[in-house]
Amino acid sequence: MSPSDVKVLSAWYSLFGVRILIALKAKGVEYEFIDEPDLTGNKSKLLLESNPVHKKIPVLIHKGKPICESLIIVQYIDETWPSQHHKGCFLPQDPYERALVRFWADYVDKKVYEGCILILQNVKGALTKQGRSVVTESMVALDGALRDVFGPGPYFGGDQINLVDIALGSYLCVFETMETLGDFKVLDESTCPHLCAWAEAVAQYPSVKEGLATAPSHKVLEAIRSIRKTFFSLAE
Amino acid sequence: MSPSDVKVLSAWYSLFGVRILIALKAKGVEYEFIDEPDLTGNKSKLLLESNPVHKKIPVLIHKGKPICESLIIVQYIDETWPSQHHKGCFLPQDPYERALVRFWADYVDKKVYEGCILILQNVKGALTKQGRSVVTESMVALDGALRDVFGPGPYFGGDQINLVDIALGSYLCVFETMETLGDFKVLDESTCPHLCAWAEAVAQYPSVKEGLATAPSHKVLEAIRSIRKTFFSLAE
Repeated sequence: MSPSDVKVLSAWYSLFGVRILIALKAKGVEYEFIDEPDLTGNKSKLLLESNPVHKKIPVLIHKGKPICESLIIVQYIDETWPSQHHKGCFLPQDPYERALVRFWADYVDKKVYEGCILILQNVKGALTKQGRSVVTESMVALDGALRDVFGPGPYFGGDQINLVDIALGSYLCVFETMETLGDFKVLDESTCPHLCAWAEAVAQYPSVKEGLATAPSHKVLEAIRSIRKTFFSLAE
Repeated sequence: MSPSDVKVLSAWYSLFGVRILIALKAKGVEYEFIDEPDLTGNKSKLLLESNPVHKKIPVLIHKGKPICESLIIVQYIDETWPSQHHKGCFLPQDPYERALVRFWADYVDKKVYEGCILILQNVKGALTKQGRSVVTESMVALDGALRDVFGPGPYFGGDQINLVDIALGSYLCVFETMETLGDFKVLDESTCPHLCAWAEAVAQYPSVKEGLATAPSHKVLEAIRSIRKTFFSLAE
C-alpha cells in the first residue's frame, strides 16, 4: 500500500481530524496529510468535491474514494484495516456492548460538541455560561459511564482504546482552549475522578499521544483565537 | 424467545419508534409495545430508568437491558438477529458501502430532523419558512444520493431495505403533518423524481408498511397538533 493511497484532508488544529490520525496510527496505516488552509473563506476544490454535502473537514480519501464525518471515518478505518498493528478493534464484538460504545461516542458528538461550540463561538457571556454548564454536565455523565458502564479501564475500551476513547480523546487538544476562552476547568477532580485518571492515561496511549502531538494545545488556542477574530468578529 | 424478552418503550406517534418496529418486523422478532403516555409532562419511571441520559423514547429493552437512540437500536437489532426472516441485513458488507449508508442515515438524522422540528415546533412564521427550506434542500440531496450513490433501487438498499430506508422511511408517517403545519409539499415530483418513486415503493415494503400502519398519518397530525397546543402553547 502506497502512503498516497490514504489521504487525510483536514486542518491541523481540528479535533475531528485528530480522530482520524489517532485511528490510522493505531492501525499502523501510513497517510498523506493535506492541510485545508482556509476554512473561513475559500474552501478548496478538493474539499468541495470530496464532501459536497457538508463541505466540512475531515475527509479521508482512500484509493480516490472520499469518506466523510469523523466517527464514520474511524469506523471505516476499523473495518478496512481490522488487524494491522492493533490488538483489537474500536468496537467490541458483542452487539449490546457495541450499542453502548456507539451510544457514548454519539453522546460525545452531541453533548460535548454542543458545549464546546457554545464556548468557542461566543465571547464571555450568556452563551459561554450555557456552554460551561453543558460541558460540565457532559463530563459528569461520561465519568459515570466510565465507572458504571465500561468497567475497570483505564480506557473506555478496557486495556485498549475504543470508539469512545477516540471520540473524547480528540477533545484533549482543545481543553486548554475551552478552559481559557470559557474561563473554567473542563475536568474537575472532585466531580470527575475517573475521567481525570482516564485523560491522563489516554494521553499517553501511543496512537493518541502521536495524534494529539499534531495539534499542540497552546497552538490550537492561538489558531482558534485567530479564527474567532476573523470569522466571528468577536473580541475577547 | 418469549415476546416479553423484547419490549419497545415508545409513543405510538413517534417516527423514531416506528424505526424500531420496522426493524423488528423485518427480522420477524416479536415484541411487546409499551406506550409512554405523557412525554410533555411526567415521564414514566421505566423511561427515566431505561434512558437516564437523554430521557427520550424510543428505548428497546432486550432481556432487561435497555438500548437507546433509534439508529443505534436498529443496528443492535441488525446485529442481534442477523438472519431471521430477512434476506440480508441493514448494512452492506463492504466497508466503503457501509460508510456511505452510515453517512446518509446520519444525514437524515441531522438535516431532515432539523427541518422537521423547525416546522413542527413553530407556528407559521420565520422558523417554519426556514424549516421548509431545510427539508426541501435535504430531499433534493437525498434524491441525488438515491440516483448517484445507491444505484438502481427501488430502495436505498437495492432490492431490500437498509439503514437509510429505515431512517428516512419512518418519516413517511409525519409527511402529512409537516405538509399541513408547514403548508408545503415535502416531496416534489419535479425536483425529487427518484425519491417520489422510492417513497411509493418503500411504503409497500412489508415491514415498512406494517410499521407505518401503527402510526397513521392523519392520527399523527392530530397528536402533534394536540402536543403543540399543550406543550408549546402555540395557536395555529
